[in-house]
Amino acid sequence: MKLHHVGVAVTDLNEAIARYKAMGLKLAHREVVASQRVEVAFMSDIQGFGPFVELLVGTDPNSAVWKFLAKNGPGQHHLAFSVPSIEIELERQAAAGAVLIDKAARPGAWGHMVAFVHPMSHDGVLIELVEESH
Amino acid sequence: MKLHHVGVAVTDLNEAIARYKAMGLKLAHREVVASQRVEVAFMSDIQGFGPFVELLVGTDPNSAVWKFLAKNGPGQHHLAFSVPSIEIELERQAAAGAVLIDKAARPGAWGHMVAFVHPMSHDGVLIELVEESH
Repeated sequence: MKLHHVGVAVTDLNEAIARYKAMGLKLAHREVVASQRVEVAFMSDIQGFGPFVELLVGTDPNSAVWKFLAKNGPGQHHLAFSVPSIEIELERQAAAGAVLIDKAARPGAWGHMVAFVHPMSHDGVLIELVEESH
Repeated sequence: MKLHHVGVAVTDLNEAIARYKAMGLKLAHREVVASQRVEVAFMSDIQGFGPFVELLVGTDPNSAVWKFLAKNGPGQHHLAFSVPSIEIELERQAAAGAVLIDKAARPGAWGHMVAFVHPMSHDGVLIELVEESH
């Protein structure tokens, strides 16, 4: 398992992308994830490699990210780790007593399969598991 | 510039280290940073490489991390990026209108020089600049 990306909820996606570009990062991928009601931008290092900073905005008020922003304002939202098998890691997490948000992997951003584990089980940090497809 | 580590404030450092180890990460470095009144643990991937998850606890009530935990509970605390020159990046940040917490680099954890930029200038994210010494 290793760090795949850091999710940051932002209020203005274009402005945030521009600011991270000015810091020397690069826009590696941008996508509307309709199932999650978010638009995301993955910022890589200048060579295009991760771990990425994933900038997120909600696309409508029913989006979890929209609600997060309404409650907390912008800020760090989740930590994502790539794993060889989400199924095996979810089983391990559950056996360790973690509260699972997703019982099984589901399609996420950038074509990867993902699953979330509740922050109450990880020092207040929402954990995303990513099974990379590329 | 690229991601160096993700800072997470935790309530129990040993318990958090054990949990990240169970997830497949490795304890790469542990240190009390007296000047910052924190104890930190850097969790690497299994080969020992970063970017790291830096777990932080405050060592006394005057610590910024202790205050963060008292106010917010555990959770994501900052994002750190390695830069070739903190001095140049602080100048660029200031010119871009960012609010600087540190006007100059100062000694941080693991022998690196560091400086912080205020979250109000970065989508609510406290930014740490790291000039790596090794």
